[in-house]
Order: sequence, then structure tokens, then C-alpha cells
Amino acid sequence: MIVIGERINGMFSDVKNAIKTEDKEVIQKLAIKQVKAGADVLDVNVGPASAKPEVTMPWLVETIQEVTDTQLALDSPKLDVIKSGLEVVKTPPIINSTQADPQKMQTYFDLVNETGASIIALTVDKQGVPQDIDRRMELASTIVMSAMEMGISFDRLFIDPIILPVNVAQPQAGFLLKALAQFQYLADPPPHFVVGLSNVSQGTMEKKLINRTFLVMCMAMGLDAAIMDPFDKELMDAMITAEVLMNKQIYSDSFLTAYISK
Amino acid sequence: MIVIGERINGMFSDVKNAIKTEDKEVIQKLAIKQVKAGADVLDVNVGPASAKPEVTMPWLVETIQEVTDTQLALDSPKLDVIKSGLEVVKTPPIINSTQADPQKMQTYFDLVNETGASIIALTVDKQGVPQDIDRRMELASTIVMSAMEMGISFDRLFIDPIILPVNVAQPQAGFLLKALAQFQYLADPPPHFVVGLSNVSQGTMEKKLINRTFLVMCMAMGLDAAIMDPFDKELMDAMITAEVLMNKQIYSDSFLTAYISK
Repeated sequence: MIVIGERINGMFSDVKNAIKTEDKEVIQKLAIKQVKAGADVLDVNVGPASAKPEVTMPWLVETIQEVTDTQLALDSPKLDVIKSGLEVVKTPPIINSTQADPQKMQTYFDLVNETGASIIALTVDKQGVPQDIDRRMELASTIVMSAMEMGISFDRLFIDPIILPVNVAQPQAGFLLKALAQFQYLADPPPHFVVGLSNVSQGTMEKKLINRTFLVMCMAMGLDAAIMDPFDKELMDAMITAEVLMNKQIYSDSFLTAYISK
Repeated sequence: MIVIGERINGMFSDVKNAIKTEDKEVIQKLAIKQVKAGADVLDVNVGPASAKPEVTMPWLVETIQEVTDTQLALDSPKLDVIKSGLEVVKTPPIINSTQADPQKMQTYFDLVNETGASIIALTVDKQGVPQDIDRRMELASTIVMSAMEMGISFDRLFIDPIILPVNVAQPQAGFLLKALAQFQYLADPPPHFVVGLSNVSQGTMEKKLINRTFLVMCMAMGLDAAIMDPFDKELMDAMITAEVLMNKQIYSDSFLTAYISK
């Protein structure tokens, strides 16, 4: 499982304040702490914290790179913000994200080829977020075909079928599980599949319980990456246990600590 | 989800002692408490507690029936013990269990037809417990065909693909998940699928974590029944959350309490 730590995001007040006061230490501590907690990649999202995200993004990237060489996920809907991060990033990052729109994919996949980055592609286009299984499958197929045409290898492609909050769109979680099962047949070996996990529980009273339950259900269906909170110990424990149950981590009596200290 | 409460089993010391001292109250309290905790069915297993299981089984059944009319699962590998329970049971129970052996299925399915009971059929025969996905599928097909030939409707048939402890047979949990996914195509609508959940964590240090993680992963693959411990609140919460995520229980902010008080 590829854990993409979600905590360096300007929507969190500690990060927002650190961006405003240019406090490197807060960002660097969050980076190190997430890696220690089991993050394989660190998401970097300026969020609503800055009026000049194309300046803040490279500042965040450089700040993080001073303390860790962990892979980063440059997270912005704006191409120029992604590009501003790409200019300073040392290790090829994950670009987060493109949509399944042909023109956008052309632009972003070009960027992937130029930089050696990986990329997250959302199953959404101008018609919006899919409301059923078939439309998710259709858009995932479009992404896979477009990636093949442009020579993007599938180990650098992450498809995100987009999860909506269960309290406002209850059927969507089940549809996403079924879509994931179908996605496994898109290609052999398939690309990566990722979700922005916390979305599923947004606005609910049982956020953590919903997050960890949904994560392991998705993993049973073939999910192999998630943008998630590595500080949520019960979430990490559930994830590690699911890996053991799927024979992807070796069982030992102390399999939980064995994973984190790997 | 059909929760089959596992606690009235002579392998537990409180039940063992209650059987030896003919203490009805202990059994009756366990029955009521399991139903209140969310059990839909109560498993009844004499276990190693009695030298005369064909006497103890009907005593247990009658003892439980004095306080609840919840459906029972008569749990014994011995046909005469099952029959001794059937003689006194008021509501058609679940017979737990037959194996996928043709002669055994003939005998047990005859009993199902005579009594209106439901039945759990294990994917095991004289060759033993299957070690891969294909063999589980083969035995499940044998069970389904045998049930069809003998006129057993699928809403009264539970197929148990048999889970082994993850600490001694680590690949089996993943195989079982994949087998469950295939089982969905055995018939439309399919029969029920059940596991004896606690087996997966037997002998491990993280029993409850493993149980609740595996349960919701199995549910994502189509499991709709489990012999499990309804007193494990975190297990029940995970199960209810999985039901909500699969749109089988309506979401409300207090969905956990809404389920138990249903």
C-alpha cells in the first residue's frame, strides 16, 4: 500500500498559519512525523492559505526537501502551481492531478514524460463526477488508453475514482467498491488505484471509523494507494492488518510494529 | 448482514461450567445479551463440555427457547446431535453444518426438506480443506448443484468457504476473499455466504483487530453472514459501518445506535 500523507495542506490551520508566517519548522516537523508514521509519499497542497500559490508551492517543496527526500505529491488543480513545484522538486514527484478530459490529459501526460513524474488521473471530465459504476469505468478506460497512447507506463499512473461523502451521496461508496473490482481488468498488470480517503467521511460524526472501514474494503477490491492521515493510528493499524490478510506483508505476532519500522 | 452469535459454545469456560452444573441462567443471560448486542441468530454448540451431546443439545435449545424466540444455529459435526436439537426446536433453525461430500449432502438436505431448516455447507470434502481458490469454487459449485437438485431454495443455503488462522496459513485469507468474489456468480440471486470469523485470528496477538478488518473485507466481497462475537463492540461497529458504506443500512449521524435498536 502506498500511503500518501495528507497533512501538509493549507486547509489545516497549523499549515495555513505556517505558510502565512513562513514558519519552516512547522512544515518540516509535519513532514518528518508523517514519514515516521508510515507515509511513503507526502502530499503538498497550498490550499486556501496563500494568494500566490505558485510562490508558496515551491517554498513548501524546498522546505520539505531540507529535511527529507521522501517522494512528494504536488497537489493543485492549477497547472502553473504544479509547474512551480516541478521546477524545484529533486525527486520525480506524483502530479496530483489531471482530469479525464482529452486536452487536459495531453498537457499533463506531456509534463509527465518531460519530468519523469507519476500522475493521479481523476475519473471526472466536463460532465462532472460520475454517479454510477459504468461511467467511472468509461472514464478509467479513457485514462488508460490515453496513457498508453502517450507512452506513460502504468507504474506511474494512479487512477482516482473519486469518493463522495457517505452522508450526502450514500450509494457512491458501494459503486466505487464495485468500480474498483472492474478496474482490475483494465490492464495486466493494472495501474495504481488511489482515493482521497477522508472525503468519504466529510461532515460525518464517525470520521475515523468510516475512514478505516472504507479503506480496508477498498483494499480488498484492489486499491493500492490512498491520500490519508498517517497520524491516525487505528487507520494505519487497519491498513497494515489488511495487507497481512492479503499476504502482502509477512505475518508475525508483532506485525504492526514490524511494518512501521520497515 | 446476518450475525450468528458464537457465544453459546461449550469451548467457553462459562458455558462449559453452566452445562456441567445445568445452570440455565448463565445460558439464558448469554442468549438475551447476544440478541440485545445485535445477534440475528444464536449458534448452539455443546463443544467439549458434555459426554452426552445428544442430551445436552436439546437441553440448551429448550433453555434458550424459554427466554427468546431468536432463530438458532444447531452446531455439531454429528448428525445425531443435530437431530436431537431438531426434535425440540420451535422455529426452523440453521443446521451447522454439512460438508460438500455427496452422501452427506444427500442426508443433510433431506433433513432440511423435512424440517424447513436452513443449512450451512462447508467447502470441504474427504480430500480436506481447500488450499486454493479454484478448489473452493469447485466445492461451492458442487454444493449449489446438489442444493438445486434437491430443491433447497438458496435463501436457506449458506456456503462457508472455511477460513484458516492467518498465523499458520497466511495466503488462505486472500484466497478466501477472491473465492467470495467468484462465488457471487454461482447463481442469481446467490445463496448466503458465511464464515466462522474467529478462526482467522486464532492464536494471534491481535485477535480483535484481525477479526474486524477481515470481516469488512469479506463483506466488500459479498459475505452476508458470519458466526462471530456480538459482544465485541468494535467488531459490531465496523460491521455496521460497512453496511452503511454498501448502502444496506441508511446513513444517519447516529447510524451505530440506530442499527442496534432496530
